[in-house]
Amino acid sequence: MATAPSVSYSMTVRLEVPASGTAVSQLTTAVESSGGSVTGLDVTASGHEKLRIDVTIAATSTAHAQEIVSQLRGIEGVSLGKVSDRTFLMHLGGKIEMSSKHPIRNRDDLSMVYTPGVARVCQAIADNPEDARRLTIKRNSVAVVTDGSAVLGLGNIGPKAALPVMEGKAALFKRFAGIDAWPICLDTQDTDAIVEIVKAIAPGFAGINLEDISAPRCFEIEARLREALDIPVFHDDQHGTAIVVLAALTNALRVVGKKIEDVRVVMSGAGAAGTAILKLLLAAGVGHAVVADIHGVVHAGRADLVDADPDSALRWIADNTNPDGITGTLKEAVVGADVFIGVSAPNVLDGDDVARMADGAIVFALANPDPEVDPALARQTAAVVATGRSDFPNQINNVLVFPGVFRGLLDAASRTVNTEMMLAAARALADVVLDDELNANYIIPSVFNEKVAGAVAGAVRDAAKAAGDAVTAATGV
Amino acid sequence: MATAPSVSYSMTVRLEVPASGTAVSQLTTAVESSGGSVTGLDVTASGHEKLRIDVTIAATSTAHAQEIVSQLRGIEGVSLGKVSDRTFLMHLGGKIEMSSKHPIRNRDDLSMVYTPGVARVCQAIADNPEDARRLTIKRNSVAVVTDGSAVLGLGNIGPKAALPVMEGKAALFKRFAGIDAWPICLDTQDTDAIVEIVKAIAPGFAGINLEDISAPRCFEIEARLREALDIPVFHDDQHGTAIVVLAALTNALRVVGKKIEDVRVVMSGAGAAGTAILKLLLAAGVGHAVVADIHGVVHAGRADLVDADPDSALRWIADNTNPDGITGTLKEAVVGADVFIGVSAPNVLDGDDVARMADGAIVFALANPDPEVDPALARQTAAVVATGRSDFPNQINNVLVFPGVFRGLLDAASRTVNTEMMLAAARALADVVLDDELNANYIIPSVFNEKVAGAVAGAVRDAAKAAGDAVTAATGV
Repeated sequence: MATAPSVSYSMTVRLEVPASGTAVSQLTTAVESSGGSVTGLDVTASGHEKLRIDVTIAATSTAHAQEIVSQLRGIEGVSLGKVSDRTFLMHLGGKIEMSSKHPIRNRDDLSMVYTPGVARVCQAIADNPEDARRLTIKRNSVAVVTDGSAVLGLGNIGPKAALPVMEGKAALFKRFAGIDAWPICLDTQDTDAIVEIVKAIAPGFAGINLEDISAPRCFEIEARLREALDIPVFHDDQHGTAIVVLAALTNALRVVGKKIEDVRVVMSGAGAAGTAILKLLLAAGVGHAVVADIHGVVHAGRADLVDADPDSALRWIADNTNPDGITGTLKEAVVGADVFIGVSAPNVLDGDDVARMADGAIVFALANPDPEVDPALARQTAAVVATGRSDFPNQINNVLVFPGVFRGLLDAASRTVNTEMMLAAARALADVVLDDELNANYIIPSVFNEKVAGAVAGAVRDAAKAAGDAVTAATGV
Repeated sequence: MATAPSVSYSMTVRLEVPASGTAVSQLTTAVESSGGSVTGLDVTASGHEKLRIDVTIAATSTAHAQEIVSQLRGIEGVSLGKVSDRTFLMHLGGKIEMSSKHPIRNRDDLSMVYTPGVARVCQAIADNPEDARRLTIKRNSVAVVTDGSAVLGLGNIGPKAALPVMEGKAALFKRFAGIDAWPICLDTQDTDAIVEIVKAIAPGFAGINLEDISAPRCFEIEARLREALDIPVFHDDQHGTAIVVLAALTNALRVVGKKIEDVRVVMSGAGAAGTAILKLLLAAGVGHAVVADIHGVVHAGRADLVDADPDSALRWIADNTNPDGITGTLKEAVVGADVFIGVSAPNVLDGDDVARMADGAIVFALANPDPEVDPALARQTAAVVATGRSDFPNQINNVLVFPGVFRGLLDAASRTVNTEMMLAAARALADVVLDDELNANYIIPSVFNEKVAGAVAGAVRDAAKAAGDAVTAATGV
């Protein structure tokens, strides 16, 4: 697949060029003939003989960016100054900060924000612990917890290297839902230790967002924390993805005129996201689901599953999918299927495989950055195609879900998050796309659609309140 | 001791009063004759017959505030509306928040702050973990960690009730030193568990501020964390207090013209703060120190110490103080002493005890809110008196110390905090008071003195760099 130049590979190059002649126009030509694009050109100093220019360039990769710079260096009369990577510049010193809501200007302010006045507030909470939701940051705070074991597509890079993702997540929580999230990057990958740590830090938060924790540990960690804590625990890589997939599938089925109960869904990938998507699809009414992993189609009689731990995720899949007992490869399973959902690896299918699916086929190829099948090829025969990429239509992006889900949970002071709330979130997200907007290239709204977070939050809040597990908020001052 | 009305017991009362007549003037009279003071009077609505007035009143206690309200209710023609407690109002929803440093306006912003651009930053840190201090919030972040076991004077009120103090602390870190601190309130008081948890959360922070953890657990927790972590661990209740006491004592000795090597210091209190103060005073040159606790003067032959754990804090005190082998009570020990430092309980001494101290006596009575001896009585014979209270001269307040100490540690990217750095902080704080400003009522600057944090930070940074344990900061973009 060709990739377009992207601002995520964007740099600013400081150059000195002769004031007369064609050097400036040669700059732009050189960038564009190298396959990059000039997104900004600022003259920062000018004299009779020389201009100093900051050229901002988008490339397709780090190597490509370096190639463009060497092209610029080759232009006669140009001298190259500092090359700054815009993404790295944005990360210098981190992306988030702590702010005080009240100025502390004088002794009076200090005596209310801190001692001695704060003692009365502490005593009020000691007398009535539920007041912590009223008189502290707990009400609006979420811990973004990772052990750095499965960060993006980078794998087990550890807690420090995971921090930029967690900061970004916190920034998105604020941007889209007004939530105060703080990253907690753990220097342990021991399941028991993680459970104990998250239990211990819970008093200061109203929700726990687990992030980038590898399977199968993530299943046990989440299950044990949900059992132990009185605040909702949500592993976004599982459930955020599941909710947005269900919303997109709901709308894709509207496009092709099929019902969720009737379709045969074939999935590639039985990891954290795959398992969560599967469970939510089953809860939403999918009756025919088949899952394949690296060893082929999952079925109860498969050699590696006959004696598998009955509590394992794969065993659960074997017992709850594939009612017809299909065996064999993924490629065999997709023949005649209505829906393909991939959360696995690049290029496990080709255009011919997609062509063998049923009429009105739906293909969600979500592996990032390289999908399970080239979306351009898939689109030749499939009716609807979605990916995880921002440079194709129908991007399946968790940013559509997690801010609104947590906003709804926090607004309801919910102690849990359950399947009903997730189904409600998916319905609300799907419904943001109106009937007269819906088409094969617009099954899911943009992450910048201003209706999304509020719609999801409202649906989750109502479902949480209906679940009757909301803490009765204390009132009055 | 009489207490003045304080904004920390401040409320706003909404009243309706007749537009004509003397009701308005009666309001102020009623408040003042009840011992309160009117700090604000705003007419929020006015008509021909009625005025609506918000009166803001400072009282001395909650009971006093209620008494004033009942006085107002008794005025003819006045009807009472909502009564709002200003301190509680300031705490609604918490005092701090998370903010994003960069706007996320569009797809380009998103692709740099989050995926896909963030992946390159993560990979850079995975390749060179020290880059976490350059490309993440780690560089400027401090965890404010408590288990809620010794909160202010309120005791073991637990992690939720401790949260308002930790939020206040975070707000002060920002206000005075530009540091991003986040509260971590732990739902465990097990020493081993706390050590493991703090070790695990350390990757995202450049320093750990332990807060309001009871003795003797706080000693072991701090010592084990210092051993385990490559970032500084500072228990403010111990060392913040010790540093400000040493600074104040340094200046008090300048006032009375004595040398720290020559004075006999008697301390009351052998808890966390007392032990830390003692150790820092010994490091600063104090040769004659005697400590008393609830059982009297600590000495190696005391019944409860003969068989004490040789690693206990009290045993350490017995082995390192009281060179003359004094025995008996606190009151006996202070006779002829040059310096009394109390970090214990109210009213353990009276004016006569202070009168029996040496000429040019220095009395630091730091128990809060009620000092070890009434400062007004102490001042009748002592040359210098300091307390922990904001309504007497010479307030010994940790806010003078912890922001600057951490600013210095963070600026030096220090892996530790040691006695040399604390001595440097105390010297710098003492030196903020210039020779021509120094007198018995001004031995320590105000917390709002703008020179304080910078002076302390600079001294700590230099000491940390001199200690040669600073991480070499990565440079360039």
